[in-house]
Amino acid sequence: MTTPSGHTSAIQASRVIGTEVYNTEGRHIGSIENVMLDKMSNNIMFAVIGFGGFLGIGEKYHAVPWASLDYDPGHNGYVVPFSKEQLEAAPVHDISDLTGDGTRVRDDAYTYYKVPPYWI
Amino acid sequence: MTTPSGHTSAIQASRVIGTEVYNTEGRHIGSIENVMLDKMSNNIMFAVIGFGGFLGIGEKYHAVPWASLDYDPGHNGYVVPFSKEQLEAAPVHDISDLTGDGTRVRDDAYTYYKVPPYWI
Repeated sequence: MTTPSGHTSAIQASRVIGTEVYNTEGRHIGSIENVMLDKMSNNIMFAVIGFGGFLGIGEKYHAVPWASLDYDPGHNGYVVPFSKEQLEAAPVHDISDLTGDGTRVRDDAYTYYKVPPYWI
Repeated sequence: MTTPSGHTSAIQASRVIGTEVYNTEGRHIGSIENVMLDKMSNNIMFAVIGFGGFLGIGEKYHAVPWASLDYDPGHNGYVVPFSKEQLEAAPVHDISDLTGDGTRVRDDAYTYYKVPPYWI
């Protein structure tokens, strides 16, 4: 959240897309495929991590709350505070889940990763 | 803002980038160059409209609040509720202004376009 001094850290969406993602054990788990934006509010709905597949065929995706991504200069990528086991058991989606309304994907992600919802 | 039913409209950042932008008179004013995300909160800071220049050399940019972009299927692009005169007098930025902290650019944009700040 913004601090009382109003400090912000601006990041270009185009630079987020393609950034590698690691888990708490430093294991590479995928890369940011996209960032879903909420047109009805000023919020970032979630980030989309791709972790397999070939040219999108059969690729599966994780939706993770924006707040869970922590940039680590050492990895030159994002670290998410989730273990291998948590990620393996996390909701996975195919591309059709992500191009629709997005609400259910968002709700499932925030519930699973126990991140407080921004929309309530 | 989200409605009481929780309806949202999910948009992929990668699809926003490159979308054409028109003003209230239907005049083409540029295209979305990027979307600036706020890492310290869950918010979209502003959208960046490019409107001239060649391969980035001498290109100038407008920062506009996300809430000001309204998708118009007829134009297959965004319409901003600003006149030619408003946009001509709006703050302009070069690329170095946009790759820094972003707070001043954001504050200037919200003030100029009279959009209520999301961060207060």
